[in-house]
Amino acid sequence: MTLDLSATSIDVTRQICDIESVSGNEKRLADDIEQALRMPHLELFRDGDLVVARTNLGRERRVVIAGHIDTVPVNRNLPTRFETEDGVEYLWGRGTVDMKAGVAVALKLAAELVAPSVDVTWLFYDHEEVASDLNGLGRLARTRPELLEGDFAILGEPSNGAIEGGCNGTMRFDVVTHGKRAHSARGWMGENAIHKAAPILRLLADFEPETITVDGLDYRENLNATMASGGVATNVIPDECRIHVNYRFAPSRSTAEAEARMRALFEPLGEFELKDMSPGARPGLDDPLAQEFLAATGLEAKPKYGWTDVARFSALGIPAVNYGPGDPSLAHADDERVPVAQITACEQALRAWLA
Amino acid sequence: MTLDLSATSIDVTRQICDIESVSGNEKRLADDIEQALRMPHLELFRDGDLVVARTNLGRERRVVIAGHIDTVPVNRNLPTRFETEDGVEYLWGRGTVDMKAGVAVALKLAAELVAPSVDVTWLFYDHEEVASDLNGLGRLARTRPELLEGDFAILGEPSNGAIEGGCNGTMRFDVVTHGKRAHSARGWMGENAIHKAAPILRLLADFEPETITVDGLDYRENLNATMASGGVATNVIPDECRIHVNYRFAPSRSTAEAEARMRALFEPLGEFELKDMSPGARPGLDDPLAQEFLAATGLEAKPKYGWTDVARFSALGIPAVNYGPGDPSLAHADDERVPVAQITACEQALRAWLA
Repeated sequence: MTLDLSATSIDVTRQICDIESVSGNEKRLADDIEQALRMPHLELFRDGDLVVARTNLGRERRVVIAGHIDTVPVNRNLPTRFETEDGVEYLWGRGTVDMKAGVAVALKLAAELVAPSVDVTWLFYDHEEVASDLNGLGRLARTRPELLEGDFAILGEPSNGAIEGGCNGTMRFDVVTHGKRAHSARGWMGENAIHKAAPILRLLADFEPETITVDGLDYRENLNATMASGGVATNVIPDECRIHVNYRFAPSRSTAEAEARMRALFEPLGEFELKDMSPGARPGLDDPLAQEFLAATGLEAKPKYGWTDVARFSALGIPAVNYGPGDPSLAHADDERVPVAQITACEQALRAWLA
Repeated sequence: MTLDLSATSIDVTRQICDIESVSGNEKRLADDIEQALRMPHLELFRDGDLVVARTNLGRERRVVIAGHIDTVPVNRNLPTRFETEDGVEYLWGRGTVDMKAGVAVALKLAAELVAPSVDVTWLFYDHEEVASDLNGLGRLARTRPELLEGDFAILGEPSNGAIEGGCNGTMRFDVVTHGKRAHSARGWMGENAIHKAAPILRLLADFEPETITVDGLDYRENLNATMASGGVATNVIPDECRIHVNYRFAPSRSTAEAEARMRALFEPLGEFELKDMSPGARPGLDDPLAQEFLAATGLEAKPKYGWTDVARFSALGIPAVNYGPGDPSLAHADDERVPVAQITACEQALRAWLA
């Protein structure tokens, strides 16, 4: 047996981090997980490099506990090592935060909790860190949606040990102005598309984003130009200017509503080119299972701002939260490291609730 | 003899256009010119692919008549051909407008006018269509300035048969705003450099350029953003935005004055990075030789907006005008073509004045 799930969850984290699994290279880790969870109390499914392990105890309610097993590319930060700073012990290295500590806790509990208080679908999936259409969870939702069924979902993404509910939606679009080229020595023969972008930037600079309370959590919206480009040469009046805008909107707004709002603001100022959008996810903290989970763990609930896969559960009608060890601001950082005490605390909280 | 300068100036234009001489490849044409002008009444100098041919008649006044022999790259527009449209006959092809028709007129007159009314320095130079520091005329001004001496200069750049005096100055600079990067899901943690460019674009859009009369000609100024760029990724608050601005200013302003004016406008809005600047050239039409030239040809004088090498003569204290066949708006165009009647008219006007 390659993985030893009888070790501590800290050690399981170390074991699975040291199996490199950059997106596209998850096979070895998925094989090891499948082998380690081949146990009488679990029903196994494999789809590509995704592994599902389900209890079938006939409980009234089912909880999905999910985590992705891939990481962003390694940058001289494997193998892992333990280090101590100011008396705090950390496990350092690629994947420790995003999100193999969360996966390790789930693996250990999947192996040990032979009779949890609710049925549990443990889900370990591939391709989260790359283009959205490759995402293993998205693939399963398309091809085997019945395997995702449940009353509540917990995604083990790093949340610094707090419970982060739902997430903002996100929408990206270009606002494009048009003009007419001319040699800049005779600027009056042309029409300057960059100058026409002035009111677009003014609107963005003056925009006052709202903070919207959804199911008791405050979601802070924001609207930002993230890219700007225009011009063909330093002596030519530009005939096009393109401002790329990212709108992050509270999960109480539908994508249709968010789009209509942006079109109303920007269509008078330029051509509106929608690039993509993803709905937010309501925190779902009013759900009885979520309430039980909060009560059992005694943890604080906060809004999640970044878009995560909880929105995929939300789209399937399943309330979902992020809960996992590690500081999300260290995700993808080369000095990614997780305080080992957070791994143990996360294991204990989930165990207390599920046992 | 490769070039036959006893042919019409129209035919000489055809001959020299069909000798491809894209910048850097002028050697063959320069060799042919040197050989064709090896005549008793002309003193020859060669510097790289630049050829100077001077009369030394002891006249009181000396006129410099100059033209560049290089072209922008050929794009399936060689060899030349004659074509007729709406009863007008054209010579079509690369170089016909910019500026081998003007060069052909000068070559023919250099060969034929053995005793002009003023001494003439005929100047055929290389590398005008590329980076300014390669320019043959500039090289000669540095290494053999005595060969450029004269009381008046005519540059055979296309001017549609009119006399275009002086030229606007030009200055290019960036105005750069700075901010602080952050993930766009938490935009409030950053500082948006693109939004900070709003007042820069506003200023440019609202700017009302002046028209300034210099020596009787109206110079129209203008101020334009020609390039805009900012942002590092579609989900990151941008920490820099760069607006590239081109200011074209009347030849009555010095570069120092133009720079001070731009700094006063833009330094309050961002970091000011000067890229380059070139002084304008006063038309010098109050000069007695210029007055004689205007009177002899009966042609209209107009301001030149684009920067041309007349400014190099102006910097040496020599009044200079542009006068040559062809529509300057067709320069560099793939369908560059010159009305052949303009070539003949240009030859006749110069001959009448110089004979």
